[in-house]
Amino acid sequence: MSDAAKKKEDILQPTDDEARALVHELMARADYAAIAALDPATGHPLASRVALALDEDGTPVILTSKLAAHTPAIEADGRCSLLVGEPGMIKEAKGDPLTHPRLTVIAEAERVAHDSDMHARLRERWLVRHPKSKLYIDFPDFAFFRLAPLRGSLNGGFGKAYELTPSDMLSAKA
Amino acid sequence: MSDAAKKKEDILQPTDDEARALVHELMARADYAAIAALDPATGHPLASRVALALDEDGTPVILTSKLAAHTPAIEADGRCSLLVGEPGMIKEAKGDPLTHPRLTVIAEAERVAHDSDMHARLRERWLVRHPKSKLYIDFPDFAFFRLAPLRGSLNGGFGKAYELTPSDMLSAKA
Repeated sequence: MSDAAKKKEDILQPTDDEARALVHELMARADYAAIAALDPATGHPLASRVALALDEDGTPVILTSKLAAHTPAIEADGRCSLLVGEPGMIKEAKGDPLTHPRLTVIAEAERVAHDSDMHARLRERWLVRHPKSKLYIDFPDFAFFRLAPLRGSLNGGFGKAYELTPSDMLSAKA
Repeated sequence: MSDAAKKKEDILQPTDDEARALVHELMARADYAAIAALDPATGHPLASRVALALDEDGTPVILTSKLAAHTPAIEADGRCSLLVGEPGMIKEAKGDPLTHPRLTVIAEAERVAHDSDMHARLRERWLVRHPKSKLYIDFPDFAFFRLAPLRGSLNGGFGKAYELTPSDMLSAKA
Protein backbone atom coordinates (compact mmCIF):
# COMPACT_ATOMS: atom_id res chain seq x y z
CA MET A 1 0.00 0.00 0.00
CA SER A 2 1.34 3.45 -0.90
CA ASP A 3 1.86 6.08 1.80
CA ALA A 4 -1.02 8.08 0.32
CA ALA A 5 -3.34 5.07 0.31
CA LYS A 6 -2.37 4.30 3.90
CA LYS A 7 -2.97 7.90 4.97
CA LYS A 8 -6.31 7.94 3.16
CA GLU A 9 -7.35 4.80 5.02
CA ASP A 10 -6.36 6.57 8.26
CA ILE A 11 -8.59 9.60 7.68
CA LEU A 12 -11.64 7.66 6.44
CA GLN A 13 -14.10 7.54 9.33
CA PRO A 14 -16.92 5.05 9.75
CA THR A 15 -20.17 6.69 8.56
CA ASP A 16 -22.24 7.16 11.72
CA ASP A 17 -25.51 8.93 12.56
CA GLU A 18 -23.65 12.19 13.18
CA ALA A 19 -22.14 12.10 9.68
CA ARG A 20 -25.52 11.25 8.15
CA ALA A 21 -27.15 14.13 10.06
CA LEU A 22 -24.54 16.53 8.63
CA VAL A 23 -25.15 15.15 5.12
CA HIS A 24 -28.90 15.71 5.50
CA GLU A 25 -28.37 19.22 6.90
CA LEU A 26 -26.11 20.17 3.98
CA MET A 27 -28.56 18.80 1.42
CA ALA A 28 -31.63 20.32 3.09
CA ARG A 29 -30.07 23.79 3.40
CA ALA A 30 -28.40 24.05 -0.02
CA ASP A 31 -30.38 26.29 -2.39
CA TYR A 32 -27.75 25.78 -5.06
CA ALA A 33 -24.76 23.58 -5.86
CA ALA A 34 -21.96 23.09 -8.36
CA ILE A 35 -22.64 20.38 -10.93
CA ALA A 36 -19.97 18.47 -12.84
CA ALA A 37 -21.11 17.01 -16.16
CA LEU A 38 -19.50 15.81 -19.40
CA ASP A 39 -19.34 18.10 -22.44
CA PRO A 40 -21.15 16.02 -25.09
CA ALA A 41 -18.85 17.28 -27.88
CA THR A 42 -15.49 16.75 -26.18
CA GLY A 43 -15.97 14.65 -23.03
CA HIS A 44 -14.34 17.47 -21.07
CA PRO A 45 -15.73 17.82 -17.52
CA LEU A 46 -17.78 21.01 -17.05
CA ALA A 47 -18.42 22.78 -13.73
CA SER A 48 -21.40 25.11 -13.46
CA ARG A 49 -23.99 26.32 -10.95
CA VAL A 50 -27.44 24.85 -10.48
CA ALA A 51 -30.34 25.63 -8.19
CA LEU A 52 -31.24 22.68 -5.97
CA ALA A 53 -34.21 21.15 -4.17
CA LEU A 54 -34.95 17.67 -2.84
CA ASP A 55 -37.65 15.23 -3.85
CA GLU A 56 -39.71 13.71 -1.03
CA ASP A 57 -37.24 10.81 -0.66
CA GLY A 58 -34.28 13.20 -0.46
CA THR A 59 -33.13 12.75 -4.08
CA PRO A 60 -31.51 15.99 -5.33
CA VAL A 61 -33.52 17.73 -8.04
CA ILE A 62 -32.46 20.51 -10.40
CA LEU A 63 -34.51 22.77 -12.68
CA THR A 64 -32.45 23.78 -15.67
CA SER A 65 -32.77 25.57 -19.01
CA LYS A 66 -31.75 24.10 -22.36
CA LEU A 67 -29.50 27.15 -22.68
CA ALA A 68 -27.27 26.08 -19.77
CA ALA A 69 -24.24 24.03 -20.86
CA HIS A 70 -24.96 21.29 -18.33
CA THR A 71 -28.44 20.55 -19.74
CA PRO A 72 -27.42 19.04 -23.10
CA ALA A 73 -24.52 17.42 -21.21
CA ILE A 74 -26.70 15.44 -18.79
CA GLU A 75 -29.24 14.72 -21.53
CA ALA A 76 -26.48 13.07 -23.57
CA ASP A 77 -24.83 11.29 -20.61
CA GLY A 78 -26.57 11.24 -17.22
CA ARG A 79 -23.34 10.81 -15.27
CA CYS A 80 -22.83 13.86 -13.09
CA SER A 81 -21.92 14.95 -9.61
CA LEU A 82 -22.91 17.71 -7.22
CA LEU A 83 -20.81 19.68 -4.77
CA VAL A 84 -23.09 20.72 -1.92
CA GLY A 85 -22.21 22.90 1.07
CA GLU A 86 -21.02 26.47 0.69
CA PRO A 87 -18.54 27.82 3.22
CA GLY A 88 -20.55 29.55 5.94
CA MET A 89 -23.63 27.35 5.50
CA ILE A 90 -22.94 25.51 8.77
CA LYS A 91 -22.59 28.15 11.47
CA GLU A 92 -20.06 26.24 13.58
CA ALA A 93 -17.50 26.17 10.73
CA LYS A 94 -15.11 29.14 10.68
CA GLY A 95 -11.92 30.12 8.88
CA ASP A 96 -10.36 28.22 5.95
CA PRO A 97 -13.12 27.18 3.49
CA LEU A 98 -11.32 23.86 3.01
CA THR A 99 -12.16 23.00 6.64
CA HIS A 100 -15.88 23.68 6.09
CA PRO A 101 -17.99 20.57 5.54
CA ARG A 102 -19.04 19.77 1.99
CA LEU A 103 -20.50 16.82 0.19
CA THR A 104 -19.86 15.31 -3.22
CA VAL A 105 -22.84 13.36 -4.58
CA ILE A 106 -22.00 11.05 -7.49
CA ALA A 107 -25.25 10.69 -9.41
CA GLU A 108 -27.09 9.69 -12.55
CA ALA A 109 -29.40 12.38 -13.94
CA GLU A 110 -32.87 11.41 -15.11
CA ARG A 111 -35.03 13.90 -16.98
CA VAL A 112 -38.58 14.28 -15.65
CA ALA A 113 -41.33 14.27 -18.31
CA HIS A 114 -43.39 17.49 -18.27
CA ASP A 115 -46.77 15.78 -18.19
CA SER A 116 -45.97 13.31 -15.39
CA ASP A 117 -47.25 13.12 -11.80
CA MET A 118 -43.62 13.38 -10.76
CA HIS A 119 -43.33 16.71 -12.56
CA ALA A 120 -46.40 18.05 -10.74
CA ARG A 121 -44.95 16.96 -7.38
CA LEU A 122 -41.50 18.42 -8.09
CA ARG A 123 -42.98 21.68 -9.40
CA GLU A 124 -44.87 22.13 -6.13
CA ARG A 125 -41.82 21.32 -4.00
CA TRP A 126 -39.60 23.57 -6.14
CA LEU A 127 -41.87 26.60 -5.75
CA VAL A 128 -41.74 26.26 -1.95
CA ARG A 129 -37.94 26.25 -2.05
CA HIS A 130 -37.49 28.75 -4.90
CA PRO A 131 -40.56 31.02 -4.97
CA LYS A 132 -38.98 33.43 -7.48
CA SER A 133 -38.77 30.61 -10.03
CA LYS A 134 -42.49 31.05 -10.76
CA LEU A 135 -41.32 33.60 -13.35
CA TYR A 136 -39.76 30.86 -15.52
CA ILE A 137 -40.65 27.43 -14.08
CA ASP A 138 -43.25 26.79 -16.82
CA PHE A 139 -41.10 27.97 -19.75
CA PRO A 140 -40.91 25.14 -22.31
CA ASP A 141 -37.09 25.14 -22.33
CA PHE A 142 -36.91 24.40 -18.59
CA ALA A 143 -36.97 20.85 -17.26
CA PHE A 144 -36.52 19.01 -13.98
CA PHE A 145 -33.87 16.34 -13.57
CA ARG A 146 -33.67 13.96 -10.61
CA LEU A 147 -30.05 13.19 -9.73
CA ALA A 148 -30.20 9.65 -8.35
CA PRO A 149 -27.26 9.20 -5.92
CA LEU A 150 -24.88 6.33 -6.70
CA ARG A 151 -22.29 7.08 -3.99
CA GLY A 152 -20.91 10.08 -2.22
CA SER A 153 -18.25 11.49 0.02
CA LEU A 154 -18.49 13.87 2.94
CA ASN A 155 -15.46 15.98 3.71
CA GLY A 156 -15.64 17.42 7.20
CA GLY A 157 -12.27 19.17 6.92
CA PHE A 158 -8.67 17.97 7.11
CA GLY A 159 -8.43 14.44 8.40
CA LYS A 160 -12.20 13.76 8.43
CA ALA A 161 -13.69 11.99 5.45
CA TYR A 162 -16.63 9.64 5.04
CA GLU A 163 -17.70 7.46 2.13
CA LEU A 164 -21.45 7.41 1.63
CA THR A 165 -23.96 4.98 0.20
CA PRO A 166 -27.20 6.17 -1.45
CA SER A 167 -29.12 5.37 1.74
CA ASP A 168 -26.74 7.57 3.76
CA MET A 169 -27.84 10.49 1.55
CA LEU A 170 -31.56 9.82 1.10
CA SER A 171 -34.13 10.70 3.77
CA ALA A 172 -34.83 8.12 6.46
CA LYS A 173 -38.56 8.93 6.16
CA ALA A 174 -38.67 7.90 2.47
CA MET B 1 -31.60 26.27 -36.14
CA SER B 2 -33.60 24.97 -33.14
CA ASP B 3 -35.53 27.37 -30.92
CA ALA B 4 -33.03 26.73 -28.11
CA ALA B 5 -30.04 27.40 -30.37
CA LYS B 6 -31.69 30.59 -31.61
CA LYS B 7 -32.41 31.75 -28.04
CA LYS B 8 -28.85 30.93 -27.01
CA GLU B 9 -27.53 33.03 -29.85
CA ASP B 10 -29.79 35.85 -28.66
CA ILE B 11 -28.41 35.88 -25.11
CA LEU B 12 -24.73 35.56 -26.07
CA GLN B 13 -23.20 39.01 -25.71
CA PRO B 14 -20.01 40.19 -27.40
CA THR B 15 -17.15 39.94 -24.88
CA ASP B 16 -16.19 43.52 -24.09
CA ASP B 17 -13.90 45.22 -21.57
CA GLU B 18 -16.68 45.29 -18.97
CA ALA B 19 -17.13 41.51 -19.23
CA ARG B 20 -13.35 40.97 -19.04
CA ALA B 21 -13.15 43.23 -15.96
CA LEU B 22 -15.84 41.12 -14.26
CA VAL B 23 -13.96 37.92 -15.18
CA HIS B 24 -10.76 39.32 -13.67
CA GLU B 25 -12.58 40.49 -10.53
CA LEU B 26 -14.16 37.05 -10.02
CA MET B 27 -10.82 35.27 -10.51
CA ALA B 28 -8.86 37.70 -8.35
CA ARG B 29 -11.33 37.55 -5.44
CA ALA B 30 -12.03 33.81 -5.39
CA ASP B 31 -10.19 32.05 -2.57
CA TYR B 32 -11.78 28.77 -3.58
CA ALA B 33 -13.71 27.20 -6.43
CA ALA B 34 -15.50 24.03 -7.47
CA ILE B 35 -13.45 21.77 -9.73
CA ALA B 36 -14.88 19.21 -12.15
CA ALA B 37 -12.54 16.34 -13.03
CA LEU B 38 -12.84 12.79 -14.39
CA ASP B 39 -12.80 9.82 -12.03
CA PRO B 40 -9.84 7.78 -13.38
CA ALA B 41 -11.55 4.46 -12.58
CA THR B 42 -14.97 5.16 -14.11
CA GLY B 43 -14.78 8.37 -16.19
CA HIS B 44 -17.61 9.78 -14.06
CA PRO B 45 -17.37 13.55 -13.58
CA LEU B 46 -16.47 14.55 -10.00
CA ALA B 47 -17.25 17.89 -8.35
CA SER B 48 -15.21 18.96 -5.35
CA ARG B 49 -13.84 22.07 -3.65
CA VAL B 50 -10.35 23.47 -4.18
CA ALA B 51 -8.50 26.48 -2.82
CA LEU B 52 -7.44 28.87 -5.57
CA ALA B 53 -4.77 31.43 -6.37
CA LEU B 54 -3.47 32.96 -9.60
CA ASP B 55 -0.04 32.74 -11.18
CA GLU B 56 1.53 36.03 -12.28
CA ASP B 57 -0.07 35.74 -15.75
CA GLY B 58 -3.50 35.09 -14.23
CA THR B 59 -3.48 31.30 -14.74
CA PRO B 60 -5.54 29.63 -11.97
CA VAL B 61 -3.44 27.55 -9.58
CA ILE B 62 -4.55 24.97 -7.03
CA LEU B 63 -2.67 23.31 -4.16
CA THR B 64 -4.03 19.88 -3.54
CA SER B 65 -3.35 16.75 -1.50
CA LYS B 66 -3.00 13.27 -2.97
CA LEU B 67 -5.81 12.31 -0.60
CA ALA B 68 -8.36 14.49 -2.43
CA ALA B 69 -10.32 12.62 -5.12
CA HIS B 70 -9.57 15.29 -7.73
CA THR B 71 -5.78 14.89 -7.43
CA PRO B 72 -5.41 11.38 -8.92
CA ALA B 73 -8.14 12.41 -11.39
CA ILE B 74 -6.24 15.37 -12.86
CA GLU B 75 -2.96 13.44 -12.70
CA ALA B 76 -4.50 10.72 -14.90
CA ASP B 77 -6.33 13.14 -17.24
CA GLY B 78 -5.62 16.88 -17.05
CA ARG B 79 -9.03 17.87 -18.47
CA CYS B 80 -10.91 19.79 -15.80
CA SER B 81 -12.97 22.87 -15.22
CA LEU B 82 -13.45 25.43 -12.46
CA LEU B 83 -16.59 27.20 -11.31
CA VAL B 84 -15.52 30.55 -9.88
CA GLY B 85 -17.74 33.17 -8.24
CA GLU B 86 -19.71 32.46 -5.10
CA PRO B 87 -23.06 34.19 -4.63
CA GLY B 88 -22.40 37.34 -2.63
CA MET B 89 -18.82 37.79 -3.90
CA ILE B 90 -19.84 40.74 -6.07
CA LYS B 91 -21.61 43.23 -3.80
CA GLU B 92 -23.99 44.56 -6.46
CA ALA B 93 -25.56 41.12 -7.01
CA LYS B 94 -28.59 40.38 -4.80
CA GLY B 95 -31.33 37.79 -4.58
CA ASP B 96 -31.44 34.56 -6.61
CA PRO B 97 -27.95 32.94 -6.71
CA LEU B 98 -28.56 32.04 -10.36
CA THR B 99 -28.53 35.76 -11.21
CA HIS B 100 -25.12 36.26 -9.52
CA PRO B 101 -22.19 36.31 -11.91
CA ARG B 102 -20.05 33.20 -12.15
CA LEU B 103 -17.41 31.89 -14.47
CA THR B 104 -16.67 28.44 -15.86
CA VAL B 105 -13.02 27.98 -16.84
CA ILE B 106 -12.39 24.96 -19.10
CA ALA B 107 -8.77 24.03 -18.45
CA GLU B 108 -5.96 21.53 -18.72
CA ALA B 109 -4.19 20.78 -15.42
CA GLU B 110 -0.39 20.64 -15.36
CA ARG B 111 1.41 19.40 -12.25
CA VAL B 112 4.23 21.66 -11.03
CA ALA B 113 7.49 19.86 -10.13
CA HIS B 114 8.48 20.43 -6.49
CA ASP B 115 12.06 21.47 -7.25
CA SER B 116 11.25 23.96 -10.01
CA ASP B 117 11.51 27.76 -10.09
CA MET B 118 7.82 27.77 -10.89
CA HIS B 119 7.12 25.93 -7.64
CA ALA B 120 9.10 28.50 -5.65
CA ARG B 121 7.16 31.33 -7.32
CA LEU B 122 3.76 29.70 -6.78
CA ARG B 123 4.59 28.81 -3.16
CA GLU B 124 5.33 32.46 -2.44
CA ARG B 125 2.16 33.70 -4.18
CA TRP B 126 0.07 31.01 -2.48
CA LEU B 127 1.23 31.98 1.02
CA VAL B 128 0.18 35.60 0.40
CA ARG B 129 -3.31 34.46 -0.60
CA HIS B 130 -3.64 31.57 1.85
CA PRO B 131 -1.40 32.33 4.86
CA LYS B 132 -2.84 29.45 6.95
CA SER B 133 -1.58 26.98 4.34
CA LYS B 134 1.93 27.29 5.82
CA LEU B 135 0.84 24.45 8.14
CA TYR B 136 0.73 21.96 5.22
CA ILE B 137 2.10 23.62 2.07
CA ASP B 138 5.39 21.70 2.31
CA PHE B 139 3.87 18.30 3.09
CA PRO B 140 5.17 15.81 0.49
CA ASP B 141 1.66 14.74 -0.54
CA PHE B 142 0.69 18.29 -1.55
CA ALA B 143 1.36 19.62 -5.03
CA PHE B 144 0.56 22.66 -7.15
CA PHE B 145 -1.26 22.35 -10.44
CA ARG B 146 -1.57 25.15 -12.98
CA LEU B 147 -4.95 25.01 -14.75
CA ALA B 148 -4.20 26.42 -18.21
CA PRO B 149 -7.43 27.94 -19.59
CA LEU B 150 -8.64 26.57 -22.94
CA ARG B 151 -11.94 28.44 -23.10
CA GLY B 152 -14.53 29.75 -20.70
CA SER B 153 -17.97 31.15 -20.19
CA LEU B 154 -19.18 34.01 -18.04
CA ASN B 155 -22.76 33.91 -16.88
CA GLY B 156 -23.93 37.30 -15.68
CA GLY B 157 -27.46 36.10 -14.88
CA PHE B 158 -30.48 35.29 -17.01
CA GLY B 159 -30.08 36.52 -20.56
CA LYS B 160 -26.43 37.56 -20.20
CA ALA B 161 -23.76 35.13 -21.30
CA TYR B 162 -20.29 35.56 -22.74
CA GLU B 163 -17.93 33.07 -24.37
CA LEU B 164 -14.31 33.63 -23.36
CA THR B 165 -10.95 32.94 -24.94
CA PRO B 166 -7.85 32.24 -22.82
CA SER B 167 -6.70 35.84 -23.31
CA ASP B 168 -10.04 37.12 -21.96
CA MET B 169 -9.23 35.27 -18.72
CA LEU B 170 -5.50 35.86 -18.33
CA SER B 171 -4.06 39.12 -17.01
CA ALA B 172 -3.36 41.90 -19.51
CA LYS B 173 -0.08 42.60 -17.72
CA ALA B 174 1.29 39.09 -18.43
